[in-house]
Amino acid sequence: QGCEDDAAPTGASSGVPSTSSSTFFGYFQPEYDTHFTDPSTNTFKFKRARFGVRGRVNRSFSYYAMIETSDFIASDGNVYLMDAFVTFDKYEWTKFSVGSFKQPFGLEVTTACHSLTTIDRSIVSDQLVAPQRDLGLMMLGGTSKTKFRYSVALMNGTGLGLKDNNTKKDIIGRASYKVFDFMTLGGSFRYGYPNTKDKDRTTLGGEVVLSYNAFKLQGEYIYDEGDYNRAAEGGCGSVPLELGDKRAGAYVMATYDLNEKFQPVFKYEYFDQDLDIKKIGYQEMMTIGANYFINKNTRIQVNYQNKIETGLSVDNDALLMQLQVKF
Amino acid sequence: QGCEDDAAPTGASSGVPSTSSSTFFGYFQPEYDTHFTDPSTNTFKFKRARFGVRGRVNRSFSYYAMIETSDFIASDGNVYLMDAFVTFDKYEWTKFSVGSFKQPFGLEVTTACHSLTTIDRSIVSDQLVAPQRDLGLMMLGGTSKTKFRYSVALMNGTGLGLKDNNTKKDIIGRASYKVFDFMTLGGSFRYGYPNTKDKDRTTLGGEVVLSYNAFKLQGEYIYDEGDYNRAAEGGCGSVPLELGDKRAGAYVMATYDLNEKFQPVFKYEYFDQDLDIKKIGYQEMMTIGANYFINKNTRIQVNYQNKIETGLSVDNDALLMQLQVKF
Amino acid sequence: QGCEDDAAPTGASSGVPSTSSSTFFGYFQPEYDTHFTDPSTNTFKFKRARFGVRGRVNRSFSYYAMIETSDFIASDGNVYLMDAFVTFDKYEWTKFSVGSFKQPFGLEVTTACHSLTTIDRSIVSDQLVAPQRDLGLMMLGGTSKTKFRYSVALMNGTGLGLKDNNTKKDIIGRASYKVFDFMTLGGSFRYGYPNTKDKDRTTLGGEVVLSYNAFKLQGEYIYDEGDYNRAAEGGCGSVPLELGDKRAGAYVMATYDLNEKFQPVFKYEYFDQDLDIKKIGYQEMMTIGANYFINKNTRIQVNYQNKIETGLSVDNDALLMQLQVKF
Repeated sequence: QGCEDDAAPTGASSGVPSTSSSTFFGYFQPEYDTHFTDPSTNTFKFKRARFGVRGRVNRSFSYYAMIETSDFIASDGNVYLMDAFVTFDKYEWTKFSVGSFKQPFGLEVTTACHSLTTIDRSIVSDQLVAPQRDLGLMMLGGTSKTKFRYSVALMNGTGLGLKDNNTKKDIIGRASYKVFDFMTLGGSFRYGYPNTKDKDRTTLGGEVVLSYNAFKLQGEYIYDEGDYNRAAEGGCGSVPLELGDKRAGAYVMATYDLNEKFQPVFKYEYFDQDLDIKKIGYQEMMTIGANYFINKNTRIQVNYQNKIETGLSVDNDALLMQLQVKF
Repeated sequence: QGCEDDAAPTGASSGVPSTSSSTFFGYFQPEYDTHFTDPSTNTFKFKRARFGVRGRVNRSFSYYAMIETSDFIASDGNVYLMDAFVTFDKYEWTKFSVGSFKQPFGLEVTTACHSLTTIDRSIVSDQLVAPQRDLGLMMLGGTSKTKFRYSVALMNGTGLGLKDNNTKKDIIGRASYKVFDFMTLGGSFRYGYPNTKDKDRTTLGGEVVLSYNAFKLQGEYIYDEGDYNRAAEGGCGSVPLELGDKRAGAYVMATYDLNEKFQPVFKYEYFDQDLDIKKIGYQEMMTIGANYFINKNTRIQVNYQNKIETGLSVDNDALLMQLQVKF
Repeated sequence: QGCEDDAAPTGASSGVPSTSSSTFFGYFQPEYDTHFTDPSTNTFKFKRARFGVRGRVNRSFSYYAMIETSDFIASDGNVYLMDAFVTFDKYEWTKFSVGSFKQPFGLEVTTACHSLTTIDRSIVSDQLVAPQRDLGLMMLGGTSKTKFRYSVALMNGTGLGLKDNNTKKDIIGRASYKVFDFMTLGGSFRYGYPNTKDKDRTTLGGEVVLSYNAFKLQGEYIYDEGDYNRAAEGGCGSVPLELGDKRAGAYVMATYDLNEKFQPVFKYEYFDQDLDIKKIGYQEMMTIGANYFINKNTRIQVNYQNKIETGLSVDNDALLMQLQVKF
């Protein structure tokens, strides 16, 4: 959860958590974007600029807190507290976290923000798993090293910085299992009340990851129906779209590690704002790109986004270039 | 002063301040609140989420700076610089601080925010000692280990983030003395100009702390008259009330340490917005709760707040549950 | 660049950069200002309150990030990300930085904010080198120890927190050379598009520094013409003035180190908002002050600013007193 996957709260990596510790960490991502729209735009900006602290209080409790300082994520451009949670992690299969963290839904959303394979998450992850971050209580088990892992959370459902707008909490969960050495399957669900306690929302997701030597294929499908919160921001600064009663989307992404440093990536995705309406609100996008790992803390990402229209072709492709440094 | 009591600027604990140092520290408080109003509300939130740095520059100067990142304290929900001061602490009885810090008024206000016995301060502390934090210059002497201690400050009187709205500064002071091993008495005063230099405000406070083995009783009375600043926020995110020309309030709080970890607490308080008007604007509240110290850095607080109306009974009780982690 | 001059990203001071490191640092400046206007004002405030992290990723890459938390700089009073850049510094004469940093224009603007000789920069530096901070890419070479040094940057030109408002980037550059042991000369230029890609702006600057034993004389002249961005904030929280088509200003500043701790300073400056209009918009100011260095991390600055009117004399002098602590 949080922006790390299961980044060790220092010491946990050795198997036996140390007694007490504190680590200052962060990463930031200067970026140069060109949008081939008419008129075109280009700009230097930051994708993310995050600084945090994590550590252990004792053998049973760890903590994690991080602020986002990029002006280009929050709609008001202000600094805000992002993830901040305390975890009771004495027992590997029944850990508990309380505070603010990502909703445990979908593989791409729960992937650490500095470890994404493409610069942007897929449209469906940003549009349907909103709010991506929320306040609540989570039970979780397993790590990236175990075959099975799961998370179930009770959350406000209104996103960061807001009190719940109704008395019912949202329940969100995800589980994944490594069926074979080369295949991991996963599923997610969310049942909640975006606005009032009378109107509900149901979201379902399925994911698969296939690995074969240097080749990796990852796919995800998300289906969502019912009410939604028009005031909620889309994930990671994206502009929220108008949604119909039923909406869905998916992506498949393939990468190949040419060597330790260079990794080309191809991603195809679609998103349908309203399953009941044909053509309007349906979009497809292809991303062609590459990741270059200068070293384990510095990475260059280049992505060309080709948006495919069903009707008339529109000039809206984009070239994104990002440099990331992590410490 | 600040959010620490007299938390050592590292090294001072050994008696002889070290030459130079810097410590990153902080604490945050995820909370789950239920308000039994009609309609009722419940929500996950943060009470506070604070991160700071403190240290010594040399044997004579120390510094302290802290930001508040909780979205639920400032009225605009933004991150802000809270306490930030430089202290000339060469002589124990004539130390000087300059910067932003709490107004030295009253026992509860000057208690470090992570060491409060109940989740909320009393209504009178939040309503009458406003702004609780301010910019200015302070002279102070003594520590929590000395029998006597005092603080006198010249401050803007307009609170954090604002320039003074008039040319006269406010003077605020507090002194306490351990009369017997089991009894400490204290008094506070403030004389200032909340808006213009023609209209003044006078505030007086008295406090007593009694300790007997595991039992502790603490009480405080605050009286306030004259002008006040309607734009100033109440302490710690509380909504400021309309005040009459004279207003007052008090609380008594009893705790008993059942053992090292478990501490039940009972608090009774009242607040009168306008001493000249009977009944209207008078409120009483009882808080029943407990503190559970998981270890010295992790604490659970549960408080039930029972608001007592003089006239008709209204549904407005509340149950607050907080987990605090400190590092 | 940034707020440091060429403050070593830890380790570089030894000549051979270390492999990996991270340092938390910052400084803050409580200040007491009196303005002898009619009516007069006086207030405690912060000039700056900055906290950051810098370090090395490996032998070729370093990073630097800093937030400004003073309520008295940004026009909205909020915390914001100031400088944040990654530097490829493998080759001393062709270093590259990407992210947000100061526009490399003029000696005073590029002087680290905690090392300024007077509390305020000159009016011309604040008014014409706006935005002082921006997003972009910079090539630079040399250090404070080399005779020659240069910087050239491609930047949005719209300032921090904003995407570029047109497709053309601004180019800004500065070079300086130590002609004799006692004399350094420098020049700066900027050519950019403050609003649209049709209307340009050209800025030129010249600087000289003379040192003789404990005596130092520094002067700078800046000339600017063409379009400008009315929405851009002036440097360091100053109120931006209306500018004519051509504008210019200059200052000379003299200091004498009486001893290691005490340094009196005298500065004369003028600024002309519109070279085509006589008298109106022309201002002169003298600053008389002193710096007292308590130790290398703590400094007191006192400045008396005497504004000289060409026509009627107006009451607008100011006395500024600042304490700075750095860690």
